[in-house]
Formats: sequence, structure tokens, C-alpha cells
Amino acid sequence: MPEAEPRAGPISFDLTPEELRQLGAELVELMADAIAAERSEPVLRAVSGEEMRSILDEPLPQSGVPPAEILDTWRRKVLPYCRRNGHPRFFGYVCTSADPLGMLADGMASALNQPVAAWRSTPAATEIERLAVRWLDQLVGFGGDGTGLLVSGGSSANFHALACAVANAEHQAGLPAGTRNRLTVYMSREAHVSLQKAVRLLGIAPDQVRWIDVDASRRMVPAALAARIEDDIHQGWVPAVVCASAGTANTGTVDPLVEVLDVARDTEVWLHVDGSYGAPAVITGGYGWMAEAFAGADSLSLDPHKWLFAPVDAGCVLVREDAAMRRAFQLDSEYTEVTETEPIERYALFDRGLEMSRRFRGLKVWTVLKARGVAGLRQAIEQDIELRKHLDGRVAAHARLEGLGSELSIACFRYVPEGETRDERITEVNRRIVETLNREGRCYMSPTTLDGRYCLRVCIVNFRTRKKDVDFLVDEVLRIGALAET
Amino acid sequence: MPEAEPRAGPISFDLTPEELRQLGAELVELMADAIAAERSEPVLRAVSGEEMRSILDEPLPQSGVPPAEILDTWRRKVLPYCRRNGHPRFFGYVCTSADPLGMLADGMASALNQPVAAWRSTPAATEIERLAVRWLDQLVGFGGDGTGLLVSGGSSANFHALACAVANAEHQAGLPAGTRNRLTVYMSREAHVSLQKAVRLLGIAPDQVRWIDVDASRRMVPAALAARIEDDIHQGWVPAVVCASAGTANTGTVDPLVEVLDVARDTEVWLHVDGSYGAPAVITGGYGWMAEAFAGADSLSLDPHKWLFAPVDAGCVLVREDAAMRRAFQLDSEYTEVTETEPIERYALFDRGLEMSRRFRGLKVWTVLKARGVAGLRQAIEQDIELRKHLDGRVAAHARLEGLGSELSIACFRYVPEGETRDERITEVNRRIVETLNREGRCYMSPTTLDGRYCLRVCIVNFRTRKKDVDFLVDEVLRIGALAET
Repeated sequence: MPEAEPRAGPISFDLTPEELRQLGAELVELMADAIAAERSEPVLRAVSGEEMRSILDEPLPQSGVPPAEILDTWRRKVLPYCRRNGHPRFFGYVCTSADPLGMLADGMASALNQPVAAWRSTPAATEIERLAVRWLDQLVGFGGDGTGLLVSGGSSANFHALACAVANAEHQAGLPAGTRNRLTVYMSREAHVSLQKAVRLLGIAPDQVRWIDVDASRRMVPAALAARIEDDIHQGWVPAVVCASAGTANTGTVDPLVEVLDVARDTEVWLHVDGSYGAPAVITGGYGWMAEAFAGADSLSLDPHKWLFAPVDAGCVLVREDAAMRRAFQLDSEYTEVTETEPIERYALFDRGLEMSRRFRGLKVWTVLKARGVAGLRQAIEQDIELRKHLDGRVAAHARLEGLGSELSIACFRYVPEGETRDERITEVNRRIVETLNREGRCYMSPTTLDGRYCLRVCIVNFRTRKKDVDFLVDEVLRIGALAET
Repeated sequence: MPEAEPRAGPISFDLTPEELRQLGAELVELMADAIAAERSEPVLRAVSGEEMRSILDEPLPQSGVPPAEILDTWRRKVLPYCRRNGHPRFFGYVCTSADPLGMLADGMASALNQPVAAWRSTPAATEIERLAVRWLDQLVGFGGDGTGLLVSGGSSANFHALACAVANAEHQAGLPAGTRNRLTVYMSREAHVSLQKAVRLLGIAPDQVRWIDVDASRRMVPAALAARIEDDIHQGWVPAVVCASAGTANTGTVDPLVEVLDVARDTEVWLHVDGSYGAPAVITGGYGWMAEAFAGADSLSLDPHKWLFAPVDAGCVLVREDAAMRRAFQLDSEYTEVTETEPIERYALFDRGLEMSRRFRGLKVWTVLKARGVAGLRQAIEQDIELRKHLDGRVAAHARLEGLGSELSIACFRYVPEGETRDERITEVNRRIVETLNREGRCYMSPTTLDGRYCLRVCIVNFRTRKKDVDFLVDEVLRIGALAET
């Protein structure tokens, strides 16, 4: 460690009000630039790993630099190399365009700097978070009392739900905490990888995961689920949780949720629905049927930062029983002792989740729900689904394009060169299409592989996307495909 | 679900450039208000649970409201009921005053809205995060290559470290993944509750935790640790991880880290150091000795949002071996397949942690390190330690005050009425002091209980705090104590 420098009076990192206002004004211009770039800039500028590192790398700063230099670095070296997930032709993942009001709310949250651990420390932030969770609960028809938590995203929401389910299973079966080698978990291969990661972290061995068969549309087969659970019970296993998907992130697949719920109820196994992406579609006409399953589930994941247009770092886990959350997460200590007796005041979010100091995520979620209302969100979601249907139509109408399934606002298809039947050659052409498209930066999509077939995957979760953008994408696929074909 | 409304053309949540700039200007005023409130407002305004709820509660909004109404709600209903952790006389927890430049950086991160999952999706944000982690590694003398991750805070950092340690222990012992019933974990009762929570979540039973004795200064006794590990090995247990504290959040206690490291090395057990609060003190003269232990540890938690003055939601876990992180967190799936071959470009943060979509935490951490440099941070940290020593002096000098131990920038003491020896009566008076102080809002502190004695706990992690603020607190304690005494 270097020697201490001579000290010259007290140090403060405060800015004068004038400095703060001037830097604030520059920040607003940069925020406006960042939002404008979502339309005007390439979706992702081509840069190599070495180039990016050479632009940013430098030794640990020994002395500070003036604020102007900091903002200048954001402008010149960071902003240009950000992917624009809000670009009208970003079709890559279920990463949405964020509501600009949500972005401003998130900036406000940073200035308020609340560690949202418990009511006693952060009354307003805790109440806003609890209100936002109650609203989300009502929005999707979970029908709970708002028991749940805002977390960083779907992976964390799924982890929290499974932690609750597993602690609950131990409790119900009278097993001592931490004896997980008799528990079993049920999901299909289409389930999000974060569920498998959660299982592993919770100390459940891979061979305790039961992979339930899917049908030709990649949906879990309820009869296969029922049979496997019965068989496991018969053999002395303790089924802990069934994980169903309300819209997989890969293909948008929605499991037969009501039938899966029936199986879970009959066998008395915890049902977790991963609706991280798809749950908000329940407010649209075509997917209202999902509410019946949500209302019966024991836990549900849904990400406000996916199809509710909040900025990144806004997931939500809803849980039916508060006791289940506390069983998984509450630990008594001097440091976390709650002496308040009034129910609102004694509420501690850290007793319901992994985190202690938690970001004030509630403000942006509250803001998006308040600013747009159910009606606005429904319109935006329906618009995305309509665009996916428009894409389906374009694919169906063109001889070179082969649809491989679509659901919610995700469509998978591939380009098939004339008369080509060799999968290897088809894959090569489609790989070329993705690489060219993404490199040119006017569109962005991600590939996937379905039943061994490499294909193009289009996610539409964007209030900026229009028919002309979808048409542009299809035309580009056809143009590049034709070039690759020759 | 309500019926769909008639649609009238495409919906967008975009603001016009003029709207965005006008709302942005209002946001800056609100951010400035929030920062100014850290000096001018009560630390925490008294409000009851019922009052707070009645101010904020309302039904799920069916239609949206104009942006002006949103910002007005932030101003009138949220801002006044936030605790000011940056207030010069906030002594409650290790919640620091945040660097205003860090707040602006965090606002910028919200506008850039990068889901920092992997380099291929977010080149600049991934590189900034990796650079910030390398800088933190160098700052504290971990001596690694920057293997690690920014996470939400200390609880998450500790969870990540223990997940790595546990997966590593399984691997080393040749146990199949998920057979954790032979693993043992070592910590003292002074260790942060999040470590115990992590153990529970990882599926390790409470009776597999070995509570190692502490000395009169609450420091882990290395000989007791060594004896217990040897004994466990002898009995066929697999010691997985030793958790040592570099500054507990309760009392600032620093375990004898070098001696603990020796034990861990001799027994070949993973050493995790929880330096969430205290690790940055290694850059000051008095605590430079900790670097030797950090350089030998297998993992280290440190929170930039604690004593490095970043806004909330900035923890960091450093891990010696990248393979250990991947062993705990990497799962292969179609969705997470990385096809890039160049090492920088193929780096996936989601293979090293729980989260997939991750907030762009790197920007604020980079900004604080770049804007202040090691020199500025050292001055701020030393200043806090000096203020704690000043407080020690005031306590030692006054007959009514009894010091109960202090370390780093935390001091514990209590007011003892003249001639009083009954603990119950002393507790009553000190309880009254805390309640009165916090209710009056000019100071804020939190109590704790040490060896059964209720006492006042003062944390100084604030670049705004001065001697006069510490003196104000002591004078208030004496004033209220004298009143309570009578």
C-alpha cells in the first residue's frame, strides 16, 4: 500500500449546488442522447474485444479527475458501444425498450439512495415497493395479497420461488432443514436455464430433476408429469416443486398451465409458474385464460423489465404464503432484530429474500404502472403480439421461409434455399444471415436451435417497433439469404 | 380481466425531445433536492405505518396519468419520507453518504439500460464492470486477476462466495454435486447473518455450521478454529469454508485474519473474508496489515456501496479461481451458448453468478474510483476512522459514558446513570436515548446488544461528518441521558 498523503483539511465529495445543476444538465443531455441513440445509431456497433479493452483499460486511478472528464468518457467511450435494446429493429432477446419515464424514475431512485431493507429504515421506499408488488399481483390475476418481492430479474425471481418451494417441502415432509437428497423437481427441457441453476444452488443434485416430456409444440405433457410424480411418491421421493412456463424466453412456449395446475393440486405439489417474460400477456384478449392458472399457483415470476417496459433490474416474485418466504429467508440476529409491533412498520423485506441492502426498484415499477395504466400496457403488449402475427403471415406467404413455431411475441423461422434439404447447408445459410444482419447493425436478432434445426428467432417486446420494421427484417433476411444461397 | 379498449393507431411510450428535456430538468432539480435534503431535512421524518400507507395507497391504475403528476408524487409523497443516510449526523448503520457523481453515473446507467449479461450483448458495460472489478481487486490487495462480479450488496456477495466454496469442496472431495450433508462451514457468532442465510439456501443444515469461539474483543480464536477443523476431518466431515470478518457490520470487529489464513492454508480449507464493510480500510495506514490475508484468501466480499461511497446496489465478490465461479454457476443451454472464441468476447458474466440480466453497476463504481482515486478514498476513510477515535476520546473522558469497544469506524458505548449498576435500568435509559434521538431527527443511531448489554452504536461512514457532528451526538446523548436519569 502506498504511503498516506499529507492531509489538508476535511475532505468531501459534495458538489456545490451550481456544479450539481450544471453536471445534471449535462447528464440530461446524455440521457437524451442515449434514448435518441435507440433509434438513430446501429443496434450494436461492431467492435472487437481487443479494441474495446484498449479503449477503456487503464491502471487503478491514484488521484481523481474532474467531473467533466468523467462525463466525457461516458459520452465517447461507453455510450457508442452499448447495444440499443430499444431500437425499433432490435429483435434479439426479450429485452424491451424501456419507458423513458421509468428511466427517469430509476435516476431519481439513485439520488434518493434508499437501501430498501425494511420499513423502519425506508418507509416510503418500502411502501412504494409493496404497492408496486400488490399492483403486479392484481395486474396478472395472481389473486394474492401482494406477498412477494422485487428482485433483479427472472433468474433471481426463479431462485427465490424455488428456495421457498424447497423450504416448504422440507417443512411439509418433516425433514430437517438442509436434507434435500429426497426432494424432486419437475420441469421440461424448455424451462429457463435459471431454474436449473436455482436447483443446483439450492443443493439439489441434477439427478433429482425430472425432465418431463413435451409435445410437438414444446409444451409440457400433463399426463407425463402426473405419472412421474405418482411414481416418485411411490418410490419414497418428496416432490418439491413443478416449474411451468408462461412463455419461455427461447420460443415463447406456454405450457398447458391449467392442466399442470390440476396435476399439482391433485398431487399437492408446489406449482411455480415462470412468467418472467410472458405473464403480462394475461391482460390481453388472447391470453386471459392464463389467469386461472396464475390464481392457483404457489409462486409466479414476472419481470417488469421485460414486457412491462421498466428499465433493467426489475424482476418480481409473487408467493402465495408469506410464511413460505419467511421459512426460506428469515434468520434471527441482533443485526436484523425487528422490535416494532405494528404490522406495516415491522415489515422487513430482507426476511423475504436474499438481499439486505436492496435498490429502490419500486419507484420505476410504480412509475411505469402509474404513467401507463393497465390500458396503455395492454395496448403495447397487444401491439407486439399483432406484429408477431404479421411476421407469421410474411413467413407463411414466402416459399423461401419456413415457420418453426411462434407464440406470444416470439417467432422462429428459417430461410431455406431453393430445393435445399440438407440441414447442414440450411444452417450455414441462416448462420450467415444472422451474422450479416447483426454486423450491419440495422437489425439485431439471435439464433436458436429447435429440434436440431438452427433457426432465426425474432422477439418483439418493443413499443417502438412497427410493421415497417418487421417488413424490413423479413426483406433483409430474404436479401441476405438469396446472396448466401448463390 | 377487463375487455380490451378500442385501439387508435400504434402506441408508444416515447417522449418528444422537448418533453424529455423538460422532465429531465425537473428530475435534476429533484435530484438536487434529494441531495440537499441529506443536510437540511430531519434524518428520518416521523411517520406511522398507517399514515405512510394512506399517503401512498391506491388501486391499480387502469389508465395512465401525465408525467407531471408522476414527478409531483415523487416530490410530495416519496422524497419527504426517505431516510437521509448521507446526513452528517446519520450514525445508524454502515450506510454511507453516496458520492453525487456516483448518483449521476447510476442515472446514466438507467438511461443506457444495458442488461449486463455477457460481452457479446453489452461490450462497453461488460468491460467497464470487469475493469471496475480489477481496480477493486488491486485497491484492496487481493492480488487476483480481477475474477469476480459486481452484485447487489454484501449479502449477495457472501452468497456467491459460499456457493463457489461449496461447489469447490464437492469437487475436491469427489462428491457428486448436491451431496452437501458431509460439508462443514466455520464462522463465529459475530459473522454477518447473510453468511448463515447463504449456508441455509445452499442446502447445508444448521448443525453443519461450526460456531468458532471468540475472544473478549469478539475476534475469532484461530486455535479453536484449527482444533475444530482437525476434529471434523478426523470424523469424516469435509470442511468447505472458513468465513472470517474484516469488519463486522455490528461492531467493526476484525478477525485475526493472518492467523486465520494460516489455519485455512494448513488445513487446505477455502478462506472467505467478508470485508463488505471493512475491506477498503486496507488502504489506510492502520489497517494495511489486512492485505496479507486478502492476498491469500480464496474469496473476498467488499461493498463499493459501503465504504467506497457508491450509491446503493454495489457489492463485489472477488474469487481467486475463475474455474470455481464457473463450477458453481455455469450451466450449458441453447439460450446461454457462447460461440465466440476470443477470450474477451466470450466472457459471460452470467456464467459467474446468479443473475442473467444484470444492472450496469460498473458505471457508478468506475466513476467513484476514477473521480476520487485511491488518494481521495483513503482520505475519506481515514477521516471516518479519526472521527471514531475522537468519539472514543469523548466517551473515555466522561464519567457517565462507558465504552464497550470500537474498531474501524464503529464505536459502541452506553450511558450509565450515576452510581447505577442494574443492567435493566441502564438499558431503559439507553433505549430512551436512542428513541428520543431518532424521533427528534437531528441525529440517527441504532442500538445493539453486546454480551447482553444494550448499548449505543455509532457508525461513521460519511464524507460529510465532522467533529462538530460527533460532538453534537455526544452532547445529545448526555442531555437526554440526564433527563432520562431523573
